[in-house]
Amino acid sequence: MSNTRVLPLLEPEAPDGAVPCCPPLTERPFTAEEAERTARMFKALGDPVRLRLFSAVASHEGGEACVCDISDVGVSQPTVSHHLKKLKEAGLLTSERRGTWVYYRVEPSVLAAMGQLLTVR
Amino acid sequence: MSNTRVLPLLEPEAPDGAVPCCPPLTERPFTAEEAERTARMFKALGDPVRLRLFSAVASHEGGEACVCDISDVGVSQPTVSHHLKKLKEAGLLTSERRGTWVYYRVEPSVLAAMGQLLTVR
Repeated sequence: MSNTRVLPLLEPEAPDGAVPCCPPLTERPFTAEEAERTARMFKALGDPVRLRLFSAVASHEGGEACVCDISDVGVSQPTVSHHLKKLKEAGLLTSERRGTWVYYRVEPSVLAAMGQLLTVR
Repeated sequence: MSNTRVLPLLEPEAPDGAVPCCPPLTERPFTAEEAERTARMFKALGDPVRLRLFSAVASHEGGEACVCDISDVGVSQPTVSHHLKKLKEAGLLTSERRGTWVYYRVEPSVLAAMGQLLTVR
């Protein structure tokens, strides 16, 4: 037991973008920092194409979708990829490559936290 | 009864902007029209200053606030007015002039509908 070593502590993994943080919007005025983090998520959903893609992933069987399942939103494939990237950066989607395709999944904790923000007191 | 007249039917009053319309984002893919309406509300909350103002109104005593109560967000008065106008246009706030001041109020039905959108199935 003399050769135990101190391992570096890892920070819990978090998406690059916003992480749910905040009380309901009706509870008290948001601080600048809370508003910055939360606005990023709302902004990501503030575009009709992104909202359709998000909804397509969120409602897909098993809660995840391949990009091949959700491209029917009237924009080009590069545009779809661009918007999916924005949703990932905002912490709303995660992705995983399996074979040829990348699969997208909604972060249920993020969705729940955003719903919580909009709770009416 | 011979002099009955046809009165014009009035449309129910609705804000200029979005009106809650849509099922939870996780239920089925949004249509283009649903996404357009809903994205407008998310976009309005996708700015940190607007989010702070919205939260300040929503959490204020009695659910309404005078512009004099909520200007402490580090931007100029004209900028505050501009953002409050955007929130009104998105249907998230209503306003009423009483004497010197304009009072802002959160539409509880809109907040509830947005919370509903984010329901996890």
